Amino acid sequence: MKNKKEINSGIIIIGNEILSGRTQDTNTGTLSLWLNSLGIKVLEVRVIPDIEKNIINTVNELRKKYNYVFTTGGIGPTHDDITASSISKAFNIKYGPHKEAMSILRKYYKSGEFSEGRQKMAWMPITAKLILNPTSGAPGFQIKNVFCLPGVPSILKSMLGGIDHKLTGGIPILTHTINLRTVESEIAKSLAKVQHNNKEVEIGSYPFFRAGKLGVSIVLRSNDKTKIENCNLQIIKFVKEKNIEIIERD
Amino acid sequence: MKNKKEINSGIIIIGNEILSGRTQDTNTGTLSLWLNSLGIKVLEVRVIPDIEKNIINTVNELRKKYNYVFTTGGIGPTHDDITASSISKAFNIKYGPHKEAMSILRKYYKSGEFSEGRQKMAWMPITAKLILNPTSGAPGFQIKNVFCLPGVPSILKSMLGGIDHKLTGGIPILTHTINLRTVESEIAKSLAKVQHNNKEVEIGSYPFFRAGKLGVSIVLRSNDKTKIENCNLQIIKFVKEKNIEIIERD
Repeated sequence: MKNKKEINSGIIIIGNEILSGRTQDTNTGTLSLWLNSLGIKVLEVRVIPDIEKNIINTVNELRKKYNYVFTTGGIGPTHDDITASSISKAFNIKYGPHKEAMSILRKYYKSGEFSEGRQKMAWMPITAKLILNPTSGAPGFQIKNVFCLPGVPSILKSMLGGIDHKLTGGIPILTHTINLRTVESEIAKSLAKVQHNNKEVEIGSYPFFRAGKLGVSIVLRSNDKTKIENCNLQIIKFVKEKNIEIIERD
Repeated sequence: MKNKKEINSGIIIIGNEILSGRTQDTNTGTLSLWLNSLGIKVLEVRVIPDIEKNIINTVNELRKKYNYVFTTGGIGPTHDDITASSISKAFNIKYGPHKEAMSILRKYYKSGEFSEGRQKMAWMPITAKLILNPTSGAPGFQIKNVFCLPGVPSILKSMLGGIDHKLTGGIPILTHTINLRTVESEIAKSLAKVQHNNKEVEIGSYPFFRAGKLGVSIVLRSNDKTKIENCNLQIIKFVKEKNIEIIERD
């Protein structure tokens, strides 16, 4: 299924609060939907703690492996926000007050309110490109193919619009879903055959419960509309032969 | 903060549906809360696609790195469920019908309903230990320090009670949260000092919005109650000096 024009990415969620179970991560979903809409596949997500060595190693591993890497979390003003200094070390770039970021934050805060704590949010790899933050002032930053974003979901979301134009997307990945009133084991064999005959369509099968009833969502994914349509026809064919009900959902 | 008795773990979430953004993962949160309650730290989570090579490599890497590894997803009856066969390869154990699992499923389904599709759910590394499934019959399995669980959140949850006794927990990790009506930059410096003086307590700082107001949750984590209490006192001290309101939450 490897395509010449496949553009891929990895996501690094940085934060002890996710690993302790205290906070439910939603940034993976936000970033994945957004990246897929741009034709950029997400091939891996890693959730790691706020530990410098882990951040450096993970960033250095993934940035060589994927076209783009996105990190979330750890760019606030407190002692446990060590993403910016760790990324500086990963790229061997000086960590210090970023001129443009300082200027943005100086304007954002009232005179006299630009405290030492707030100034820390302008500390980052000094040659980084900024990612503007329309919600709360403090910018994210980009070095080469690595984009560093905040962990607060609403702020992260507000910043994605400022990154689109910096990314080279692939062919958008198209999706088609068929919902059936059945169980997976009933269709497993037929579906495997269809997958075998349609190698360039990724066919996923996901059981669900809804209003006390079982069902299965079949999800077709490909960057070729015709291939999805052909694959869909072959599935509908065996579904009708088996007298399985097709249901509307969502 | 490394402790002699620290027991750690890694989680592997297997499934294209998470990476496409179609499905919001909640299994990480479920497993993390459960493991932390047993005194087992989660040091890493990886979300990977349903690709054999990725599953083999990730499992083999993490099982050497951590005391325990938990996988979720990919153990159903359809063609995209390749976790069991991949894990067999990772451990170099024959993949085939597991005697005990076959016997469980044969009893679970009515006579004549134990179809080929359903039988696939009993295929796994043939020497695996089973993890019983009180919800829907098909068991998970364990090989050495790797525990393979299903992806459907409600089924996964129902199976955890059957694993507790197989795990050697560490000293339970205790947590104390202080919620403040302030912003992070206001307390960053004082908090950093407290962290410096309390190296064996992990202090996290998490901004929140609630009912239109900003606040910060400070989370103290340690396996030593006295150390948490001392740390708490030092935080309360500077909070009072700064006239910051302590708020009740949850």
